[in-house]
Amino acid sequence: MSLLTVGTVAFDTIETPFGKAEMCIGGACTYISWAASYFTDKINLVSIVGDDFPQEEIELLHKRGVNTDGLEIVEGKKSFFWAGKYHDNMNQRDTITTDLNVLADFDPQLPQSYKSSDFLMLGNLTPEIQLQVLEQMETKPKLVVMDTMNFWMDIALDALHKVIAKVDVITINDEEARQLSGEHALVTAAKKIHEMGPKIVIIKKGEHGALLFNEGQIFSAPALPLAQVFDPTGAGDTFAGGFIGYLAGNSDLSFENLKRAVIYGSTMASFCVEEFSIEKLKNLTQEMIKERAEKFVEISGVSLQH
Amino acid sequence: MSLLTVGTVAFDTIETPFGKAEMCIGGACTYISWAASYFTDKINLVSIVGDDFPQEEIELLHKRGVNTDGLEIVEGKKSFFWAGKYHDNMNQRDTITTDLNVLADFDPQLPQSYKSSDFLMLGNLTPEIQLQVLEQMETKPKLVVMDTMNFWMDIALDALHKVIAKVDVITINDEEARQLSGEHALVTAAKKIHEMGPKIVIIKKGEHGALLFNEGQIFSAPALPLAQVFDPTGAGDTFAGGFIGYLAGNSDLSFENLKRAVIYGSTMASFCVEEFSIEKLKNLTQEMIKERAEKFVEISGVSLQH
Repeated sequence: MSLLTVGTVAFDTIETPFGKAEMCIGGACTYISWAASYFTDKINLVSIVGDDFPQEEIELLHKRGVNTDGLEIVEGKKSFFWAGKYHDNMNQRDTITTDLNVLADFDPQLPQSYKSSDFLMLGNLTPEIQLQVLEQMETKPKLVVMDTMNFWMDIALDALHKVIAKVDVITINDEEARQLSGEHALVTAAKKIHEMGPKIVIIKKGEHGALLFNEGQIFSAPALPLAQVFDPTGAGDTFAGGFIGYLAGNSDLSFENLKRAVIYGSTMASFCVEEFSIEKLKNLTQEMIKERAEKFVEISGVSLQH
Repeated sequence: MSLLTVGTVAFDTIETPFGKAEMCIGGACTYISWAASYFTDKINLVSIVGDDFPQEEIELLHKRGVNTDGLEIVEGKKSFFWAGKYHDNMNQRDTITTDLNVLADFDPQLPQSYKSSDFLMLGNLTPEIQLQVLEQMETKPKLVVMDTMNFWMDIALDALHKVIAKVDVITINDEEARQLSGEHALVTAAKKIHEMGPKIVIIKKGEHGALLFNEGQIFSAPALPLAQVFDPTGAGDTFAGGFIGYLAGNSDLSFENLKRAVIYGSTMASFCVEEFSIEKLKNLTQEMIKERAEKFVEISGVSLQH
């Protein structure tokens, strides 16, 4: 099934306790599209870059089956740039620089062929742009997933609520779920967020795994205990990409299959954090993904039968 | 199999965002013994109280199959007392009062019949007393489990290391595991703690579940997403009591059975936090426990077979 992915395609400069990567490839849509490309083809990417963005990176996306007709390249301007530095515990980070550059004028126009995409992934972006993309769809997608962050809750809550009301799935981290709902207990937070629109709520808890809430059912997915998180940048986007990519690949929206999609999203995120940028995501095989996903199942499997 | 439980039997005054309980029954050994009593009989309790401790509470323990020959009652003195207040998020608390009272002179002497107990649970106490109990055992227990806390790492690290070196299992929360090991990643922290002695390391993560590490194998147990944690006091002790009680009940130390024991420990802890003190633990049935344990398995179960 076809999958439309929207979000930033950008440069990042990242500093972690383990090293620094200058001007590496980043952006929510980049991570989403790479992760999804292991599960489905016919990915339609919508984003914007400047003329500084490397053509070979676009070529690599093509080779992964990603259609970049919707990637606007603005001559004489620079791509979106973010620089951040992680604290020693890797759970917190400071933003050093945010240069919007081309993103300041992003006015996405979907190519005609995109408007009937079966699945839609609204990556983290201003809610206004997420809405703008959603409204250009000519057929209702089988599933619309949105990712967002606390920043939009702080400065664009009304617009954010408009998008949330129109999507099927929201992926959000635990602190953001608490902020959005005003509830501390995550099960109550999920209930409040259901009431805002999405019938499926996924709360990402980083090193503690993820919770999937759907029509009164709950799935608690483990995280893989990793000896080292090298760079967490893009992990949430990669999770979302793996999640929707897996669903677009088999088009089964049963709860059992949503659970599998959460495991595959978590699997892709666990690879993402092992290297800077999308480096690890560029060099995966189906065998590696299968093996890692099985580890998630293995470490959480238990039977009470004695 | 017989189970020796050591720890405080005490009074607590607890304030949470939901209410206040004055001078209610508390103490690590109380929670441990109550939780274990649902899985095994022949529980031998060692602790100390003043003459202010209600006789009817001791009677209730007897009715649960707990031998209190090792409970020293000091005439004219008061029981250990702790008062604490939880913050709104329930993850942090302030200690308001700690009155050691009888605990200041606790010099546990095991009744002869206790010295060959098959299982030993060293509840949270000064490491010196944990060691003193361990050294009075005349036959080596099948399994020795210890619980501890950051307080002893701060003021009695050398003595704590001596106990850790002699036990089979340590239960510890995530922040304490990091403090004890000096490692942030929990899988690395567990490895370092293994090297200190225990072949089994259990890291309790509160609302995020627990991790069990044993000879290179890992089990990630979920927490039950609860709408409300009413009072977290005693949850860790209750976990430990359910864990060792389950093992003492069937005497199977295979990894698969350790996993079940973690689920039953988590199950008992999930009941504990629903009411103040040991109130909820007093009124459980095997049916309630079985049903709740099955929920833990249900919410984390997933198959990758499509």
